[in-house]
Amino acid sequence: MSLLVVGSVALDTVETPHGKGVDILGGSATYIASCARYFIEPVRLVGIVGSDFPQKYLDFLRESNIDLEGLQIRDGEKTFRWGGKYDEHLSGRDTLFTELNAFEKFDPVIPEAYRQSDYVCLGNIDPGLQLRVLDQMTKPKMVIGDTMNFWIKGRRDELLKTIRRLHVFILSDSEAQMLSGTKNLVKAGTQILEMGPPVVVIKKGEHGALLITKDAMFTATAYPLESVYDPTGAGDAFAGGFLGWVAKTDDHSFENLKRAVIYGNVMASFCIEKFSVDAIKNIQSSDIENRVKTIYQLSQFEVV
Amino acid sequence: MSLLVVGSVALDTVETPHGKGVDILGGSATYIASCARYFIEPVRLVGIVGSDFPQKYLDFLRESNIDLEGLQIRDGEKTFRWGGKYDEHLSGRDTLFTELNAFEKFDPVIPEAYRQSDYVCLGNIDPGLQLRVLDQMTKPKMVIGDTMNFWIKGRRDELLKTIRRLHVFILSDSEAQMLSGTKNLVKAGTQILEMGPPVVVIKKGEHGALLITKDAMFTATAYPLESVYDPTGAGDAFAGGFLGWVAKTDDHSFENLKRAVIYGNVMASFCIEKFSVDAIKNIQSSDIENRVKTIYQLSQFEVV
Repeated sequence: MSLLVVGSVALDTVETPHGKGVDILGGSATYIASCARYFIEPVRLVGIVGSDFPQKYLDFLRESNIDLEGLQIRDGEKTFRWGGKYDEHLSGRDTLFTELNAFEKFDPVIPEAYRQSDYVCLGNIDPGLQLRVLDQMTKPKMVIGDTMNFWIKGRRDELLKTIRRLHVFILSDSEAQMLSGTKNLVKAGTQILEMGPPVVVIKKGEHGALLITKDAMFTATAYPLESVYDPTGAGDAFAGGFLGWVAKTDDHSFENLKRAVIYGNVMASFCIEKFSVDAIKNIQSSDIENRVKTIYQLSQFEVV
Repeated sequence: MSLLVVGSVALDTVETPHGKGVDILGGSATYIASCARYFIEPVRLVGIVGSDFPQKYLDFLRESNIDLEGLQIRDGEKTFRWGGKYDEHLSGRDTLFTELNAFEKFDPVIPEAYRQSDYVCLGNIDPGLQLRVLDQMTKPKMVIGDTMNFWIKGRRDELLKTIRRLHVFILSDSEAQMLSGTKNLVKAGTQILEMGPPVVVIKKGEHGALLITKDAMFTATAYPLESVYDPTGAGDAFAGGFLGWVAKTDDHSFENLKRAVIYGNVMASFCIEKFSVDAIKNIQSSDIENRVKTIYQLSQFEVV
């Protein structure tokens, strides 16, 4: 099986109550690929950076067995930069700056060798670009997509076109509420199913995630962490773990999608323990399995 | 097994986006007893009302097989009244008025016949009164207690004394955060365990509940409702279902406390479907079991 990730590769400046990281490796494609590669290798990445993108980050991605043929390095331009500051409880954040730089001209050209990828993950980018990616793909077995409030507000029509072509639409609770106009998440999920994707996953942060299809529903608990260092990338890590698991097993049954949600939660739990990809650099597969088992034990009970 | 509930019996005036109820039956003891009685009968109730308390409500409580020997009816006084208005999403509410009336002089005298009750549920009342109840009991097998922000802020020392004498302390997520000073619920739960009770249950509304002991943890999903009519009493309904199940089974194992949390979630899900106790008046035991099974199916998965 082959897995393609398209999204942003960025240099983030992040402030949390625990510290500050300047120009640290970030971006949706970075987090997704760094997590998916624990399940399937190599992960193919399509994105764009400037010529200022540090060699050490390129080395890290390559050493993580991420195929960078699709990473455009734009000469003389700067890499996309994002700056954000979290509140003391890490529950809210302010964007301090967004410098699109090279990303502004991003045209996601899919290398010939990638076009037959079995699994495609569309990270959070302009829904028009997400569509452009899909137009270049032969016939992927599964396409999952992510988005954010910015596109829901500003590019709703284009986003609705993209959503219709997804197999799995993954979004956060607040995004689901905004998109559907409904506070109740069960109702929001049901309404989003009607927009086209056969599977919807609503991420609820510390409250886990909700998996919904027309016929079934699953509520997954989050891995319980007593402290969070930096929530940046958690949603992308979830998507990477989710699709990584599905691609590895090549099993689209509801039972297996449930497990994919659990792997998504586990990868997100690692992600937020340190800045950037620091906590997802060197995970042992036994660490992943142990957290899956913990979630299993946490959420199982017997009916008598 | 015998079960005693002590708490408020009130006339509520509630406004939600769905409608308004004036002087409808409410109060913590009312909701707790109305739910617990599906598991064990009769449920003994200690509370206070004024002579204006409608006969139809007394009839309803009696017909629900709730023993009212401990319900004081104060001649010439008015019943405790509470008025509240929920926001459009039913997630926040404003208290419009609180008239303590007869409740102001409530001295929870436990009838002789009640003092050996096996199970005791202390509804949300002044923690000093909760202590006074415990001082009158012979040796209950399990005491569970509830509280609210008002007592955490205003009667912290007294509340800490009460908590130490509980077997199970049930509180909401926001109450747990306020009491512990910690936003993270896993950490908050751990800190509250150190205040004395061997078991802590944190209710998270639509996100379910967290059961914590020193050795184990369980995360229960909520019963998924697409719409909520009136959230009043949900926490009390949870407590009634929880303790009702434990009393019925007389099994204090962690495995059985998990099931108690599920029954708590189920009773809360019925409670919020209508005003007052309207939705918990005539539940069939098969309805309860069906919701337990739904939660089971929603939250179970297999590890491969």
